[in-house]
Amino acid sequence: MTYEDWVRQQLRELGRSLSFQYTPDEEIKNRLARIRTRMEKEHIEALLVVQKMNVYYLSGTTQDGFIFIPLEGPPLLMTKRELERAKVESPTKEIVGLKSSREIPLLIQAHYRKLPVSLGLELDRLPVKDYVRFQELFPGTKLMDGSPVLRETRKIKSSFEIDLMKKAGEIGKRVYQKAKRILKEGMTEIEFGGLLEAAAKKNGHEGLLRVNSLNYEAYTWHVLSGLTGGIVSQSDSPMGGLGLSPAFPVGASLKKIKAHEPILVDFGTCYHGYQADETRMFSIGRMKQKFIDAYKACKEIHDTVLGEARPGVDCEAIFMKTLKLARKLGYKDSYLGPPGFQTHFIGHGIGLELNELPFIAQGQSYPLEEGMTFALEPKIVFYGEGSAGIENTVAITEKGHEILTPTSQEIFQV
Amino acid sequence: MTYEDWVRQQLRELGRSLSFQYTPDEEIKNRLARIRTRMEKEHIEALLVVQKMNVYYLSGTTQDGFIFIPLEGPPLLMTKRELERAKVESPTKEIVGLKSSREIPLLIQAHYRKLPVSLGLELDRLPVKDYVRFQELFPGTKLMDGSPVLRETRKIKSSFEIDLMKKAGEIGKRVYQKAKRILKEGMTEIEFGGLLEAAAKKNGHEGLLRVNSLNYEAYTWHVLSGLTGGIVSQSDSPMGGLGLSPAFPVGASLKKIKAHEPILVDFGTCYHGYQADETRMFSIGRMKQKFIDAYKACKEIHDTVLGEARPGVDCEAIFMKTLKLARKLGYKDSYLGPPGFQTHFIGHGIGLELNELPFIAQGQSYPLEEGMTFALEPKIVFYGEGSAGIENTVAITEKGHEILTPTSQEIFQV
Repeated sequence: MTYEDWVRQQLRELGRSLSFQYTPDEEIKNRLARIRTRMEKEHIEALLVVQKMNVYYLSGTTQDGFIFIPLEGPPLLMTKRELERAKVESPTKEIVGLKSSREIPLLIQAHYRKLPVSLGLELDRLPVKDYVRFQELFPGTKLMDGSPVLRETRKIKSSFEIDLMKKAGEIGKRVYQKAKRILKEGMTEIEFGGLLEAAAKKNGHEGLLRVNSLNYEAYTWHVLSGLTGGIVSQSDSPMGGLGLSPAFPVGASLKKIKAHEPILVDFGTCYHGYQADETRMFSIGRMKQKFIDAYKACKEIHDTVLGEARPGVDCEAIFMKTLKLARKLGYKDSYLGPPGFQTHFIGHGIGLELNELPFIAQGQSYPLEEGMTFALEPKIVFYGEGSAGIENTVAITEKGHEILTPTSQEIFQV
Repeated sequence: MTYEDWVRQQLRELGRSLSFQYTPDEEIKNRLARIRTRMEKEHIEALLVVQKMNVYYLSGTTQDGFIFIPLEGPPLLMTKRELERAKVESPTKEIVGLKSSREIPLLIQAHYRKLPVSLGLELDRLPVKDYVRFQELFPGTKLMDGSPVLRETRKIKSSFEIDLMKKAGEIGKRVYQKAKRILKEGMTEIEFGGLLEAAAKKNGHEGLLRVNSLNYEAYTWHVLSGLTGGIVSQSDSPMGGLGLSPAFPVGASLKKIKAHEPILVDFGTCYHGYQADETRMFSIGRMKQKFIDAYKACKEIHDTVLGEARPGVDCEAIFMKTLKLARKLGYKDSYLGPPGFQTHFIGHGIGLELNELPFIAQGQSYPLEEGMTFALEPKIVFYGEGSAGIENTVAITEKGHEILTPTSQEIFQV
């Protein structure tokens, strides 16, 4: 048997037996219909997509290559490596091998008998060097920014996508249940974080979390205990932690976890590319009342937002309301970060990446819509002491919301 | 105490006590001198650097921002978040806060009394959108590609850098020692990989591995057993593995590890940003003689390369020689991948990223130099059965080489 025949059989049999789920044809068709409506509005005749999560969204595979989406006619998936896997994983009908980007216009010409007049590229991520290459390859074509069309389409999730996020949420639940048995006085933050991640992977978590950004690196081991919970760092979040070195100055550190400290665990999980993000608090023995009160305040803010979360409600208005509520509850200077370093968001869109639309944040005035999914994370920081908070991933439904992270919302005291 | 005063003290005291190592001023000065020689040759008057690992290399901090390197005069580090940490972590003298990229030309003007005539940017990674912004911000400046200057400078490592890679290698040694005690029949590949990673993190591994690429995602859990060792995937490597889903179709899977299978563990570690990469083979009980023989062939190729590795030897010539040797040993169709999918490299430069110069590969005709570091990984794939191989990270010394990954080169049989 040739390698090609053998691997097709393996992927079908072994892949399926190990719970590989392939994106259905119908799902891809719906996504294409939605993106084409936006392309038409923006006068983009075709998209040439290369960023991995966009390719996955539009084809069902992350094999290395490009997908070309014309306004009319079937899309064309051009795969560098590995073609046989792309054919098994993607319901796309037209899948061809690609040796060099030089072949892209030739393949398009051969399939559609013309090159597009205007072509959308992901200008938010595409490196300049690759763009210059496309300018040479498509001399008669107007190159445009296709990234807003992609971002806007991806902001509304289908039930297929939300189901995968729920599966990620279920993995998270199992991790937090196990966490109570793992946590011991004297272990370091990173040791605890590493064991949580091992538990998550055993349950199918894919290890990587993803952000659509040049420099922002997502990670799961955001375990902060006592003092480290008060330190901010390179990312725009209420607390960054100490991290392991100046090269990775965020998240868990080599600090030992002590009894009675507030321990904040912000742990994301990923299943078939779809992510769920959640935060819970732990303590070994009882933590100071101050942190229990702060947790309760975060929970009150969290529940107030969810009480109002439904289609039509303005994202910025929700955020501003939480500022008022935090002030009323006595957390003006500690809500969302230490004084001078307070962030201006309490929610970020989530799906294949952690920085999708919508943002529940200052300056983000647009309505919630059915099918939006976001992580809601009110947090309170007392520098020099520690921090408190809660986070859940939610979906906006026709009349309200649904929580996708089913972990108990208690404080986990061991 | 203000937050700023408190955090400076914390970073100095807590950071140092938890083995944070800050890049010395002398080290940064040497890097700047070397990069300026190259800038002069390329007629680049200044560099504006944003990609995280390049910023770290030139400043010692990964706090979010830009570093401006003029041919003459002190560099200027502009930090968005978080300024206090950047000041502690970086020996750079001129460090200023940055609210928006709009301020960049104003800050440069204020510090140097002029804007550069030519400015190098990282066109290999900089997104088009950001480039267009820089065109607006620097209307009278010629924008050039600064990425070759950065890549060429970073390809030669200092003893400071090699020492950090050795520390990563020591973490790897501890992980492989522990691996023998962790591995059990019936555990899944990802469970084994997750536990190895937990062990690495406990010893200071930073979790992330890094590649300078838009789409290539590095990961540590490349654990392949039996059949999955014969499957290639999206990355240009001899074996990709099955992975966990079409969204992450590489590395460890949910396949259970059986007795007598060849188990290939390709595990990278990261310490203060510097990486070591190594591969070892495991089996539960004895594996088939075929794989033991293939391992011995890989080891022979590995040792032959190292026997010749010294300054002045051509990288492509080394690669071509291993092709001949593999053929002579009877592995023409299985060396570096299944038939039709064989890769064309056996070594990749490594340091802050996994795809640095040099490549020991076809088409890479340039000499090895003292201070180059690379991961050397001859591998053999029998699709339908499994794979074999070895990998070590090495540094080129004045007269030969030094292995940075001290793990025993035996087959680990449990």
